Amino acid sequence: VNYSIGLDVGGTKISAALVQKDKILEKIKMPTESEKGRPYVLKKITEAVDSLLKNVDKAEVVGIGVGFPGLVDVKTGTILKAPNVPGWNNFSIQKFLESKFKLKTYLANDVRAMALGEKNYGAGKNYKNVICLTVGTGLGGAVIINNELYCGKGNAGEIGHIIIVDDGELCGCGNKGCLEAYVSSRGINRESKKVFGKVLPPLDIEDMARKGNAKAIRVYATLGRYLGVGIATLTSVLDPEVVIVGGGIAHAGKYLLGPAVEELKKRSINRPPKVVQAEFGKDAGVIGAAHLPIMGGLK
Amino acid sequence: VNYSIGLDVGGTKISAALVQKDKILEKIKMPTESEKGRPYVLKKITEAVDSLLKNVDKAEVVGIGVGFPGLVDVKTGTILKAPNVPGWNNFSIQKFLESKFKLKTYLANDVRAMALGEKNYGAGKNYKNVICLTVGTGLGGAVIINNELYCGKGNAGEIGHIIIVDDGELCGCGNKGCLEAYVSSRGINRESKKVFGKVLPPLDIEDMARKGNAKAIRVYATLGRYLGVGIATLTSVLDPEVVIVGGGIAHAGKYLLGPAVEELKKRSINRPPKVVQAEFGKDAGVIGAAHLPIMGGLK
Repeated sequence: VNYSIGLDVGGTKISAALVQKDKILEKIKMPTESEKGRPYVLKKITEAVDSLLKNVDKAEVVGIGVGFPGLVDVKTGTILKAPNVPGWNNFSIQKFLESKFKLKTYLANDVRAMALGEKNYGAGKNYKNVICLTVGTGLGGAVIINNELYCGKGNAGEIGHIIIVDDGELCGCGNKGCLEAYVSSRGINRESKKVFGKVLPPLDIEDMARKGNAKAIRVYATLGRYLGVGIATLTSVLDPEVVIVGGGIAHAGKYLLGPAVEELKKRSINRPPKVVQAEFGKDAGVIGAAHLPIMGGLK
Repeated sequence: VNYSIGLDVGGTKISAALVQKDKILEKIKMPTESEKGRPYVLKKITEAVDSLLKNVDKAEVVGIGVGFPGLVDVKTGTILKAPNVPGWNNFSIQKFLESKFKLKTYLANDVRAMALGEKNYGAGKNYKNVICLTVGTGLGGAVIINNELYCGKGNAGEIGHIIIVDDGELCGCGNKGCLEAYVSSRGINRESKKVFGKVLPPLDIEDMARKGNAKAIRVYATLGRYLGVGIATLTSVLDPEVVIVGGGIAHAGKYLLGPAVEELKKRSINRPPKVVQAEFGKDAGVIGAAHLPIMGGLK
């Protein structure tokens, strides 16, 4: 049993891949198009998995792993609450895929899937205590303790909602001053407006930063500084060896992480952890999802 | 082997006790008087332990456990850095007590000792994931994960230094906006000055609150609200089952914890944990320290 299928479902894109450990042998990408309805999306997912299975002996496939953005029940493989993928609440994707493909299927929250990939094969592989962050539309997190994903009462790792400014900016969750209110699309849009007078796409700002544009560099530096405050708090509580940062906005690399590390050094009472980019970039989610059947899913 | 000796060393007081599980059979309290020099303090500790051992068969004593405020090396039983007990840095209290009493001796940071007591016998005994806080001169913390004390790179649980107001009040650590800058002696003194025009002793303010004094209630409510913000952050990251609060300022009970829970409910994205007072109050440290030889010390 050599291969597994990973599915990384996002609010806008889906990746499906045939994976061998951390090697992607074949990958299919498609838009999520959740506005066309769940049956349509499921049909497209089914076609993708079918196509991936075509070139491999099915007896060699250990199973299917799915990363999904939102609150999930890992025991039944059910999506409980997925604000960014409308129409999937209370749907068991595990049941659906198992009956379609007769392959053991496991579900996990997308950031946790990413964390499993990075921990087992990527930037976290040499460390016991690891924190993963994804900075994109929101700020997601996952906590690895003593080499295992830690869930607490079920929902540990909601790092976007640690409070860094008691009476600060409004967050998508309805509260004020959460890290996500500063380090996310919402945060970069706010800074973009302040600095450029309008909202520019993050990737454009990143390009400008790479070309030396001082304003663009300043936008990422502001987000990075707040990220450093958040990582300082995590370091005080968990004293991890490494913090791995992925997601679209972290694509800016040193423009975000440089100022974050600088602030972390100033603000942390404990020895700062390493702060690194996710090794697998956009593929971390699908590689981590594919690891789920290998480990027999999450508990 | 039925008994153990617990020593809880504080900046102002030392407790020594003969303990059987969570029962204190005999306790000796004394002022620390570190200004009289370490040899003097050690002599008094030795006398206290001698006195405790008088009424018991020494073969029935499993060992000695010491809780000490500061950074310690648990392998060698050495105090590395103890800002509140001057003159003890780099001293191995384990070596000293073992050669005096021929009893296995173990050392731990005082808040971690308290956490062990509460987790094994007290308010945390029915839970897997527990956070302990002590609110006094400073704000200390300890994190129990999957029934074990969690240390990360060594110094996890520095909960006093999570940042709750990015550009907030100055903390004793030199940084700004740490939880400890708001919820500690420093914090209560600041509020006392604001509300009463002068610094009153916390226990006096507590008495006044119990008698219904609105200003005193307000002082504790302000601290409690900040504490709630801190616990909300901890809940987002660790989603624990229970948060146990001890220490002198937490003696105010509902006047501190009521407003904390109210704020926590507003600010937490996860289901709030229980927030309870330390069950053993001032004895939590000595009971936890006495548990160290039973568990063979910390790793």
